[in-house]
Amino acid sequence: MSISTKPASGFRDFLPNEMRQRQHVFHIIREVYKAHGFEELDTPCFERLDTLLGKYGDEGDQLMFKVLQRGRKLEKALNLDEPKDTDLADMGLRYDLTVPLARIYAQYKNELPRYFKRYQISPVWRADRPQKGRYREFYQCDVDIVGSSSMTCEAEVTSALAMVLKKLDFSGATIQVNHRMLLRAFIEAADIDVSLETDTLVAIDKLDKIGIDGVTKELLERGITQESIDKLLPMLDITVDVDDQGMPDNLAALNALGEKIGHLESGQQALKDLGELFTLGQHTAAATMLRLDPYLARGLSYYTGPIFEIRSSDFSGSLGGGGRYDGLIGMFGKESVPACGFSLGIERILVLLEERQQLQQVKPPVDVLITLWSQEALPTCLKLAQKLREDGLKVDLYPDLDKYKKQFKYADERDIPFVILLGKDEIAQDLIGIKNLKTGEQETVAYDKVVEIIKCKDK
Amino acid sequence: MSISTKPASGFRDFLPNEMRQRQHVFHIIREVYKAHGFEELDTPCFERLDTLLGKYGDEGDQLMFKVLQRGRKLEKALNLDEPKDTDLADMGLRYDLTVPLARIYAQYKNELPRYFKRYQISPVWRADRPQKGRYREFYQCDVDIVGSSSMTCEAEVTSALAMVLKKLDFSGATIQVNHRMLLRAFIEAADIDVSLETDTLVAIDKLDKIGIDGVTKELLERGITQESIDKLLPMLDITVDVDDQGMPDNLAALNALGEKIGHLESGQQALKDLGELFTLGQHTAAATMLRLDPYLARGLSYYTGPIFEIRSSDFSGSLGGGGRYDGLIGMFGKESVPACGFSLGIERILVLLEERQQLQQVKPPVDVLITLWSQEALPTCLKLAQKLREDGLKVDLYPDLDKYKKQFKYADERDIPFVILLGKDEIAQDLIGIKNLKTGEQETVAYDKVVEIIKCKDK
Repeated sequence: MSISTKPASGFRDFLPNEMRQRQHVFHIIREVYKAHGFEELDTPCFERLDTLLGKYGDEGDQLMFKVLQRGRKLEKALNLDEPKDTDLADMGLRYDLTVPLARIYAQYKNELPRYFKRYQISPVWRADRPQKGRYREFYQCDVDIVGSSSMTCEAEVTSALAMVLKKLDFSGATIQVNHRMLLRAFIEAADIDVSLETDTLVAIDKLDKIGIDGVTKELLERGITQESIDKLLPMLDITVDVDDQGMPDNLAALNALGEKIGHLESGQQALKDLGELFTLGQHTAAATMLRLDPYLARGLSYYTGPIFEIRSSDFSGSLGGGGRYDGLIGMFGKESVPACGFSLGIERILVLLEERQQLQQVKPPVDVLITLWSQEALPTCLKLAQKLREDGLKVDLYPDLDKYKKQFKYADERDIPFVILLGKDEIAQDLIGIKNLKTGEQETVAYDKVVEIIKCKDK
Repeated sequence: MSISTKPASGFRDFLPNEMRQRQHVFHIIREVYKAHGFEELDTPCFERLDTLLGKYGDEGDQLMFKVLQRGRKLEKALNLDEPKDTDLADMGLRYDLTVPLARIYAQYKNELPRYFKRYQISPVWRADRPQKGRYREFYQCDVDIVGSSSMTCEAEVTSALAMVLKKLDFSGATIQVNHRMLLRAFIEAADIDVSLETDTLVAIDKLDKIGIDGVTKELLERGITQESIDKLLPMLDITVDVDDQGMPDNLAALNALGEKIGHLESGQQALKDLGELFTLGQHTAAATMLRLDPYLARGLSYYTGPIFEIRSSDFSGSLGGGGRYDGLIGMFGKESVPACGFSLGIERILVLLEERQQLQQVKPPVDVLITLWSQEALPTCLKLAQKLREDGLKVDLYPDLDKYKKQFKYADERDIPFVILLGKDEIAQDLIGIKNLKTGEQETVAYDKVVEIIKCKDK
């Protein structure tokens, strides 16, 4: 047999050690989202093809994994003159978590509370060419508030994000903030034609990567005049001062911007929104993390208000992004529905945590291994295992009679910190031998002491 | 627009209330499996088609969801004279959790500990015709020990199962136990030809549903002689006595069986295995639940030793099954690998828990809603939310200025037990108004008292 036992190209197996680390991080994120009043949603991995198609542009339609028709429907499709993929398939694999949210909202609106605060941590699939760090199955981790236009939503979402980042030891990360309408106002104030808006945004969004000279060059290449560039770039050049306590003065920076574009209608709404957000943000977990960033553009055209992006000094790209998108959730219905949300770049965050070796400290999967020295001891071993489990410990039992070395090696392979030894003497005296495999220390003690020793280590 | 916003046929959306219930049950199962030393594995939802095909019989190959090829490979497949589904697809969706486990074991054997104790709770997909209670995407919940032939494995797996059942309030459930080789011995002892083994097993497995007369009729229809039936059925007619403490005397029942088939070689190994299992089982969480059941056959032909099935008085079918299958895990390698495991019928269990209204008691998703009475109060509200969250509470904040009734209605829609009211007076005095929405009781108290009130309710 020559069947490969590797996962399919672009897919990953998560063995227990890695799985434990991932679950540890997912757990932290879930707890923070729940603390902020969000609830978990789960949608099917498959969606009807017409739910998905046309929502992510041509490239998205191409990169979508589609599910082959079956039986007669497949035969019928194959009998067409030139069957297309949309004839051969009836469903597609979930491509992101936003389109399913929009479908859910349209379908269940009347059952959902007035404000729908949901998070979802689920895999999505994209038929990208696999390469290092890019997979065809990966998790997205989205949090959204649907149903309110209030900047309280932005304050809550950024607060949840900040709390996640702190709990994952990304305390130095910042949440860059801009506003879609502020960008529009800049373009208007710099006398750039509206038709060149996207070109302008794509160029300035690259400041981080290509510097101010690179941005200037790219703006010229994209047909923006030198005159407009000379108006545009100085407007964006705003610094946010940070005080001794680490508190940024975003409001002062915003005021400085206001002097430049406050006279334009588009600018006024943006200044009002951001003024509110920065004022509220001083009282949330995000207080030290928020940063006004006039260069931030974000690729997706569906944002309508404030936009966010997480930056961390040890990573050149973004660790996630989001913002207000008041047009999107209504896509399957008739009304436009206000919404604000964020997608955490969970796979990148996991890679960074791994690189920083921060995931090594995740607790061992098993607290103690009960070793086996004679067939007669087995009932005592099982009884002890049961008792320890009822007392909240994670207990493994060596299943076979085996050499001392092999049993200890197994404990070592599984990172189990303690082994229990039940020899004839111990059983006769109703005592338990326990050995700490790190220190080599061994004691023969009563049951309660065993629990105490293991639980102490646990702290 | 006429796009349906329902999930695709055979698929389900899990809104937050249902999701919370499912996660609650999954959490209980995870904790029990972890307590028994099992670790979580996750495999990709997609597998190569050649990994999956031929493992589940012709019907399985048909019911497998396949992923359409893309780009040039699709064009090439369509240019074939008579393209088959295996030309048009390159991958398939996971059909169960056992084949992926076998692939993992073959691929990573050298990295895995000597005994691989894994659980996996993941969705699988089957293109069955959707009907009530039968879905095309459903969760499986598997626990297996790979690498040991010891009956300790059977004792551990049934112990984990029993602990799950007790924690989910299925204390009255039983774990029926039989042995593949015991069944073979019955057939030999009843002078039934080996070629009729499957027919015989299919018939006797139906005792629960069609009674002894039905079984006799079916055996005759399947070509078993009346003479053999007259030998077979009395052998199976064994009762397990249960004492006042609820402890079953499986060993006595097994001895009675031994008198009938102990002279046959196949019977001897089975009697030895089950003797060990029932002896060990007296000391595990499964002590009161194990029941020798000579009629139990289980459909899957890959079992090689003890087999189990969960029965519950409020459900006519099985709530899960398992056993020893020493030939299967080695399917991708050269050696046969001993293994023993169990698959919990988690979707059925969820339906039963729902019917029994046992899932209503799952904690509310949010502990307290901070209501909003003036824009000026918003910073105080956010500060309070942050403090309560840091103190471990789940806090929602009403985002808009709104009428009293609407804010309370929202709390009600979300099952939130408490609301906080911060009016001018409360803020001026640094106090907090808190109202219990169930009792209507309202108090104005200091911060610490708020936490105490909410946490007390929580218990």
